[in-house]
Amino acid sequence: MSKPTLALIGATGAVGTVMRELVSTREDIWGEIRLVASARSAGKLLRVRGEDVVVQALAPEVFDGVDVAIFDVPDEVSAEWVPVAAARGAIAIDKSGTFRMEPDVPLVVPEVNPLDARDRPRNIISTPNCTTLSMMAAIGALHAEYTLKELVVASYQAVSGAGVAGPARLYDEIEALAGDRTVGQSAGDVRKALANKLEDDSPFPAPIAFNVVPWAGSYKDGGWASEELKLRNESRKILGIPDLKVSATCVRVPVVTTHSLAVHARFEREITVADAHRILEAAPTVVLMDDPANGVWPTPVDVVGTDPTYIGRIRQAVDFPNTLDMFVCGDNLRKGAALNAAEIAELVATEF
Amino acid sequence: MSKPTLALIGATGAVGTVMRELVSTREDIWGEIRLVASARSAGKLLRVRGEDVVVQALAPEVFDGVDVAIFDVPDEVSAEWVPVAAARGAIAIDKSGTFRMEPDVPLVVPEVNPLDARDRPRNIISTPNCTTLSMMAAIGALHAEYTLKELVVASYQAVSGAGVAGPARLYDEIEALAGDRTVGQSAGDVRKALANKLEDDSPFPAPIAFNVVPWAGSYKDGGWASEELKLRNESRKILGIPDLKVSATCVRVPVVTTHSLAVHARFEREITVADAHRILEAAPTVVLMDDPANGVWPTPVDVVGTDPTYIGRIRQAVDFPNTLDMFVCGDNLRKGAALNAAEIAELVATEF
Repeated sequence: MSKPTLALIGATGAVGTVMRELVSTREDIWGEIRLVASARSAGKLLRVRGEDVVVQALAPEVFDGVDVAIFDVPDEVSAEWVPVAAARGAIAIDKSGTFRMEPDVPLVVPEVNPLDARDRPRNIISTPNCTTLSMMAAIGALHAEYTLKELVVASYQAVSGAGVAGPARLYDEIEALAGDRTVGQSAGDVRKALANKLEDDSPFPAPIAFNVVPWAGSYKDGGWASEELKLRNESRKILGIPDLKVSATCVRVPVVTTHSLAVHARFEREITVADAHRILEAAPTVVLMDDPANGVWPTPVDVVGTDPTYIGRIRQAVDFPNTLDMFVCGDNLRKGAALNAAEIAELVATEF
Repeated sequence: MSKPTLALIGATGAVGTVMRELVSTREDIWGEIRLVASARSAGKLLRVRGEDVVVQALAPEVFDGVDVAIFDVPDEVSAEWVPVAAARGAIAIDKSGTFRMEPDVPLVVPEVNPLDARDRPRNIISTPNCTTLSMMAAIGALHAEYTLKELVVASYQAVSGAGVAGPARLYDEIEALAGDRTVGQSAGDVRKALANKLEDDSPFPAPIAFNVVPWAGSYKDGGWASEELKLRNESRKILGIPDLKVSATCVRVPVVTTHSLAVHARFEREITVADAHRILEAAPTVVLMDDPANGVWPTPVDVVGTDPTYIGRIRQAVDFPNTLDMFVCGDNLRKGAALNAAEIAELVATEF
C-alpha cells in the first residue's frame, strides 16, 4: 500500500507556514507533499520535511493524483477550487467558512466528532473557525458526559487570527508607541501617535496596541459580528446539539497568537469542579492548568506554539444551577487552524 | 452658609491624582481642601485648584473641622481610619473594600441609588470596586425600566486598576520587548525576554505585555478571584436585587486605563436593541456608541481620561429570551474610582 499524496493549498500564509511545520514534525504518513499557492508565489522554494519543494500555481491539474487536499485560502478561493479538488478525487479539507454550515459537509474536530468525517457525500470536510476550535476539545469532553445546554462566551482573540498582517501591525504599533510612558492615558492619544508614524493600512478597525477591540469579522443582522455567529452555529453542528443556546462577544486583544475564551457553560445536570477536573485530566489533547491558589491557570504567552487546548479557572457558578465558569486558551494557528486540519487529514489517511 | 471642608486621604496615589484634578476642574463647591497621605509623603506640595497645598500626615486631628473625607487607601488603612474620621464628624466616603458589604454602610453610585447616600448610620458611605462601577451607570439605567435578573460578565481590565505600579510595569515590559518581531510566538519566550531585562517585581502574576491574565485580586473559596465576587455582591447591593444571578470572569489586559466588560444581561421581560438605545441615550453620564455597521463601538484608547460610561455592541441574544449582549467601557480611575467618590461627595455636600 503506497502512502497517500497530500496537497497544501495556501502554503505560504500564516496557517500554511504552521501546516508545513506540522507535516514535517508529526508522524510521516504522507507520500508526496505538494505545495500550492497563488500564481504570485508559484516557483518559490519552501521547506517541507527538510527538503525544498517548488510551489505550484493553483490549477485543476495540481489535484491529479492527490488523495487529500488541505485548503487554507480565502472564502471565495475555496468556493471555486475546493469542488475542483473534490471532483478530481481528492478528499478536500477546507479551513474557510464557505462550506462549514452546508448540511452535506461534515464539520469535524477529531476529538469530538471523528465519525462525522466518514460521512462526506461531496468529498469535502470543513474545519471550524479558530475561535470555536480554541475551546472545542475541552468543551466537547465535558459535553460527552454532562450534556451541554447553554454557552455564554467572551473571547480574547489574538492578532494572528487576522492573518500575517495581524502580528505585523501589532509589532509596528508597539514599536511606534514604546518609550512613551504617557500613552494610553487620554482619549485618542494612541490614534494620534500612530497616525504620525504608521500607514493607515491596519487589518484592524481601531488601534490594537494598548487597546482591546470589540469586533471580529463582518457585519451581520442584529449588530452581530460574523465571528460571534460562527461560534454559535459551528458549536451546535460539531457537538450535534441543534438547540444549543449560545451567545458570544468577540474581542481582539494585543496578543500575537493564542485565543483565550471566558466560558460560562450550563449542563443538563450538576457538575462539580472535581467532576470537570476528572474529565479534563483524561481528555486527549487537553491540558488542565487549574490551581489558582498557587497561581496556576493558562495564559497565551505560556502556551503559544504548542498543540493542546489549555483550561483553568474552573468554578461552579454560585447563582446558576449546573453551570461552570472557565478560562480556555488555544493556539489559534495550531489547534485553531493548521493542527485540526492536519488531524482530520491523518484521520482520513487511514482509509487509504 | 460657608462652603464645606473636604479632605482627600491618599492624595498621592493613582486615584488621588485624578481626584485632585477632578476637584480642580468640577464645580467649585468646596471651602478648604485638605490633602492627607502617609507620613512618608507629609510635607510634599501638591497642586489643587491651581494652588500648592502641603500634604499632611494621617492623624486624628486632620479630620477636625472636615465635613467630607474621601479615602483612597488600602483596606487595612481604611479599616483603622475611616471610623476615626466618622467619629470626628466627617462624612467618610471610602473607596476600599472594607465597608462595602456592611449592612449599615450604603454602597452608592449616584446615577443608580442616590437616596441610599442619605441613610448612613455610621456616617460612612462606600464607593464600589472599579470593575463593578465601569458598567453600573449603563446597567442601572436598563434595570430601572426592564428589571435585571441575570448577569454573565467577562472583564478586560486595565493595568492601572492595580495602582501606579500597574502602568509602570506595562510600559517597562513594552519597552523591554519592542523591536523583537518574533516575541509572543513560542511558549515562555516573553517570560524569558522579560527575566533578562526586568526585575521580578511585577504587580501582576504573569507577563502582561502581549498577554492576558485571568486573575485579579486574591484567592477565594471555590477558585474565585476576589474581584469576581465583588462584582457579584456589589452589583446586588447597588441595584437592590438581593437575588440577582451573577457570574463573572475577570481578566487583566495590556491596556493602561479603562476597564471594558462583555455583559450578557437577562431582564424580566423582552427588551429590544431599540429599547436599550432609547434608555441609554437618555441616561445621564452614559454615552451610546452603537453603530457597528459603520465601525462605531467604544474602545479603551478612545474613551480613556473622560468621565462617561460608554456602551455599544448591543445585541438581542438569539437563543436567550429577554437578554442583551453588550460591550461597556469606563475609565477605571475616573468613573471607576475618583469620579464616583467625587460625585458622592457632591451629593452629600448639598446637605451642608
